[in-house]
Amino acid sequence: MTIRIGVIGTGAIGADHARRITQTLSGGQVVAVNDVNRAQAEAVVARLGLDAKVYDNGHELIQAADVDAVLVTSWGPTHEEFVLSAIKAGKYVFCEKPLATTARGCLNIVEAEVAAGQRLVQVGFMRPYDKGYQLLKQAIDNNQIGEPLMVHCAHRNPTVPDSYVTSMAIVDTAIHELDVLRWLLDDDYKTVQVVYPKRTRHRFEHLADPQIVLIETQKGVRIDLEIFVNCQYGYDIQCSVVGETGVANLPEPQSLLLRTEAKLATNILTDWKQRFIEAYDIELQDFIKGIEQQQLSGPTAWDGYAAAVAADACVLAQESGQIEPVVMAERPTFYNK
Amino acid sequence: MTIRIGVIGTGAIGADHARRITQTLSGGQVVAVNDVNRAQAEAVVARLGLDAKVYDNGHELIQAADVDAVLVTSWGPTHEEFVLSAIKAGKYVFCEKPLATTARGCLNIVEAEVAAGQRLVQVGFMRPYDKGYQLLKQAIDNNQIGEPLMVHCAHRNPTVPDSYVTSMAIVDTAIHELDVLRWLLDDDYKTVQVVYPKRTRHRFEHLADPQIVLIETQKGVRIDLEIFVNCQYGYDIQCSVVGETGVANLPEPQSLLLRTEAKLATNILTDWKQRFIEAYDIELQDFIKGIEQQQLSGPTAWDGYAAAVAADACVLAQESGQIEPVVMAERPTFYNK
Amino acid sequence: MTIRIGVIGTGAIGADHARRITQTLSGGQVVAVNDVNRAQAEAVVARLGLDAKVYDNGHELIQAADVDAVLVTSWGPTHEEFVLSAIKAGKYVFCEKPLATTARGCLNIVEAEVAAGQRLVQVGFMRPYDKGYQLLKQAIDNNQIGEPLMVHCAHRNPTVPDSYVTSMAIVDTAIHELDVLRWLLDDDYKTVQVVYPKRTRHRFEHLADPQIVLIETQKGVRIDLEIFVNCQYGYDIQCSVVGETGVANLPEPQSLLLRTEAKLATNILTDWKQRFIEAYDIELQDFIKGIEQQQLSGPTAWDGYAAAVAADACVLAQESGQIEPVVMAERPTFYNK
Amino acid sequence: MTIRIGVIGTGAIGADHARRITQTLSGGQVVAVNDVNRAQAEAVVARLGLDAKVYDNGHELIQAADVDAVLVTSWGPTHEEFVLSAIKAGKYVFCEKPLATTARGCLNIVEAEVAAGQRLVQVGFMRPYDKGYQLLKQAIDNNQIGEPLMVHCAHRNPTVPDSYVTSMAIVDTAIHELDVLRWLLDDDYKTVQVVYPKRTRHRFEHLADPQIVLIETQKGVRIDLEIFVNCQYGYDIQCSVVGETGVANLPEPQSLLLRTEAKLATNILTDWKQRFIEAYDIELQDFIKGIEQQQLSGPTAWDGYAAAVAADACVLAQESGQIEPVVMAERPTFYNK
Repeated sequence: MTIRIGVIGTGAIGADHARRITQTLSGGQVVAVNDVNRAQAEAVVARLGLDAKVYDNGHELIQAADVDAVLVTSWGPTHEEFVLSAIKAGKYVFCEKPLATTARGCLNIVEAEVAAGQRLVQVGFMRPYDKGYQLLKQAIDNNQIGEPLMVHCAHRNPTVPDSYVTSMAIVDTAIHELDVLRWLLDDDYKTVQVVYPKRTRHRFEHLADPQIVLIETQKGVRIDLEIFVNCQYGYDIQCSVVGETGVANLPEPQSLLLRTEAKLATNILTDWKQRFIEAYDIELQDFIKGIEQQQLSGPTAWDGYAAAVAADACVLAQESGQIEPVVMAERPTFYNK
Repeated sequence: MTIRIGVIGTGAIGADHARRITQTLSGGQVVAVNDVNRAQAEAVVARLGLDAKVYDNGHELIQAADVDAVLVTSWGPTHEEFVLSAIKAGKYVFCEKPLATTARGCLNIVEAEVAAGQRLVQVGFMRPYDKGYQLLKQAIDNNQIGEPLMVHCAHRNPTVPDSYVTSMAIVDTAIHELDVLRWLLDDDYKTVQVVYPKRTRHRFEHLADPQIVLIETQKGVRIDLEIFVNCQYGYDIQCSVVGETGVANLPEPQSLLLRTEAKLATNILTDWKQRFIEAYDIELQDFIKGIEQQQLSGPTAWDGYAAAVAADACVLAQESGQIEPVVMAERPTFYNK
Repeated sequence: MTIRIGVIGTGAIGADHARRITQTLSGGQVVAVNDVNRAQAEAVVARLGLDAKVYDNGHELIQAADVDAVLVTSWGPTHEEFVLSAIKAGKYVFCEKPLATTARGCLNIVEAEVAAGQRLVQVGFMRPYDKGYQLLKQAIDNNQIGEPLMVHCAHRNPTVPDSYVTSMAIVDTAIHELDVLRWLLDDDYKTVQVVYPKRTRHRFEHLADPQIVLIETQKGVRIDLEIFVNCQYGYDIQCSVVGETGVANLPEPQSLLLRTEAKLATNILTDWKQRFIEAYDIELQDFIKGIEQQQLSGPTAWDGYAAAVAADACVLAQESGQIEPVVMAERPTFYNK
Repeated sequence: MTIRIGVIGTGAIGADHARRITQTLSGGQVVAVNDVNRAQAEAVVARLGLDAKVYDNGHELIQAADVDAVLVTSWGPTHEEFVLSAIKAGKYVFCEKPLATTARGCLNIVEAEVAAGQRLVQVGFMRPYDKGYQLLKQAIDNNQIGEPLMVHCAHRNPTVPDSYVTSMAIVDTAIHELDVLRWLLDDDYKTVQVVYPKRTRHRFEHLADPQIVLIETQKGVRIDLEIFVNCQYGYDIQCSVVGETGVANLPEPQSLLLRTEAKLATNILTDWKQRFIEAYDIELQDFIKGIEQQQLSGPTAWDGYAAAVAADACVLAQESGQIEPVVMAERPTFYNK
């Protein structure tokens, strides 16, 4: 059985996912594409040699009888409507971050999915598919370090452009940790606080960089998350979980060990796109396999909502300087595991 | 375009490759299977839900009009005849190690392929597809360590069964290094020597373990390769290339860094099947893509021959205790890159 | 020239320093000892084969004409009076932590030393003498990581006894970081905060463990310091300084790299006494050399005072749950470098 | 008790040892110096502020009543006569490498010491005093890796001057491994072989560099020792002992872990003098303590002889290209432990 997939939004990430399905993954086929820029959609079809129909309208694509599942990789503000439309059509939908641009929007999707009575939505959080994070979660779940008590994280980018503003440290950068740490700890957030260290000179004037996000979870775990987006030296993701009997560290990406010029060194990535490149393949393959087995298992709409609520609280904490509560709606039993 | 593949030999590795093609890789489909044990072939078809015809005869499978390419994963002594048959039929063929059980048999295949005037054969040496070895080769090719002068290798298994005899240290174990080092260094072997350290007590009485293979290449590089198949502690592959300006080490497999019980530790694999598990996917995907593009790029029949000749010389050196020459036929220009 | 040294307090640390001077270091000789328990003082003299006079009174020892310098290693509450007495006598004095049991007491010593017009006091903070911390400071001072912006620290002990109470996490444990980080960053503290993660089950009921101390320095550097004194797995000191262009980590203590039992591991110390054992030698040798050159260069009375003030603020923050200011007296120019 | 020491030869190493005794170590005092260049001896006395008599003749210095022990740090060809003279005078003597310039010369010293009936000689092999090698020996002796079967070593220097000739790879460079591996394994050498890899371009024309020394011990352990004295990148000493149940590696020298410029790196030393700098202190302190306790425990005259015999065999193997036996005299029971 081949899953027939329609792609809404053929920009960078949409085209890349189409390539994955076509050239790398098993069990899926891109049969429909749509983009606000029709020429771009057509170009992707041509470049990848797809046997796919180009639609002028995303909703029409969703309705198409030969489309089994939808990828929403369009502009963020359109995500909510396309996902809701797919749910309404009873079709599986993979939606890139953000699920919706507001927590309320995410909750609309949650409610629609619950009403539909079936899990149809997977959110494009890829870190839970990273082999390193999976090893970390296994270590926790297998009690190799005891009950987690603290997590020390860092999310560092070499530089960001002028267009990157202070709140983006949360909604574009920390959002990945806000997602993956819930999954890693099987926990929810209680409060958040943001403190500002001395600013680096290697930043645009308007930006507060670095920042430290301090989080308390419902179970009492304390997380400190350094966000430093002009660290110069590389794209570097650190995560160290301190448990009652041991500490587990996210592995460094695989690299040669070189002895040259008086250094014993491994390489640090500088391009974030390389860091989780395999996880993108795995998340999408998991989506396709989930459809085959009629049981999605990746990040849920509720996870998308939870990340949005946490991000909102962090942005508030950035501005208030206070400890801010993270207040979520009650979780529908639908999302219990 | 989907490449239609026939699998000859549905034992462990054949069934595993069929699974890969069906569930993990892109662009291929298993349409035909054959095994000396027909029931086993049928069981694989059933288990994987293949839409594939079961043949009683491998040669018949090769001839089938709807078979574009053949996987030879049958018992070693049958490899030569099936590969020759596929070449004769003008079909692409992926043959698991060994290409043939003798150097002469390998040369027969080389000659048949040259006569056919087209590259049709890929040998199942997977290490060149391992990400770690690829990083190592890139470092060499990009002149990060200068011209290679020496290579220090180790190939260690936790234990081997009673059936493992001394020559298998070469033909089953060192064979992987004999293949990958030629590729890594873009070089050929000149002489080999085998020396025997004190034997470990953790071995069956009849086995000489460990052994050290000392190799001189045509370019003058010196390789020392420790083979230690009862090392107890894990499956451990080491490769350190010493160049004129630096040293590059094969990376350790990715693993959590754990602090527990007074140790700062990463895990060492114990099961060899896990060590290059991703490389198997990549080599077979490369075979399928190579067919699509009508240009195979993986290990050639000539590489299979070269490994066989080197292994023969090493087995001789095991017995003679002398430095033995590695004498190869002249390389057909067909195999020039 | 041999420096003739009197030791006040011949308990564990006093006896150990006497052994150092006698058997390991150069340029010093123990000529006088005193302890509230005279028998213990005599036993140390006998055991080390010292040619030293036993005094019944510490002040008398300080006054002795043949005593060039004094080591104060007696019970903490007596430190202040003996150090003041030594300053009054114009003698060099090395005082173990704490310099005095109160910030006010430390300030008394500072004022006495300033009045004396000559540096006479060295406080027994040994971490600045640790080779690892020195490498870290060099990296900072040589601008290898740019201006420091953040410091992530951990101070972990395997277990603590029932007698260890929550405030001791500051005054006995964090005190070492409070000292060494001022020196490392050449900075002073502005505010401190203490947050409590979920408590480990591996603790005595009355103890809050772990704790996280959050510090802001005068220059704006943000420090997070995890104190976890029942971490079970080892005695582990971590310090990672994040600068504008790079990150430098305190090295792990030297250890064999072992491959055994499916682990690639180095050892983690479990006994804190081993961690800085070489630093004790170096600090005391530096004291002796400082006297020879009439210029002490180790931790000053002012450093002892600063650590005491910071510890007081942290203990207050433990209780208040608030961000507490660190308020110091004005630094006498006497202590400018 | 202070050991009164006379130093014969006040060149670089002699002056450095005099400084150690005077400024760093405990229990010794330089009371006499001698050098063929009297002015140099006087300059050292002045520079270090020694209270020492300058002798015109080394033998006279040895005879001096106030000299308890002698350091022979003069020109190599004079070592034998001064050591013999010290033995004759019944004085403890620490002799820098080589003990004598020939194996026969070393054996003369051995015989003299045996005749004297008392251990008086310590040879200046410092590696057994290195903390890393000591950890390695402990791991072996504590059975952490089982019985040793193989040792993989490398001795790399960044460059050597024009005056460095091929045999110096043995007598100046490999000599350190020839000494320390006997101690590490508690074993003796049986045969040696030298093979020549492709030569690096970064060498003077007359020099064979790198070289690999292959050694078989009496117990059957196989050692491969890479000597590469123009490796460009650093001074790098590697030693990996493969035992029946595990592998232990000599630790890298302590270094900061730095994340800068897309590298995660530690430093490699480039100056060999830094690599074992602490071991020099420890070996000489051990000599002084050994005299105090009238029981030397460091490298013996017999060890000096064994290293000389092994070096002779290696130089022969360099020239012959053959496997050469290492033939030693019978060990006097005097040297049994």
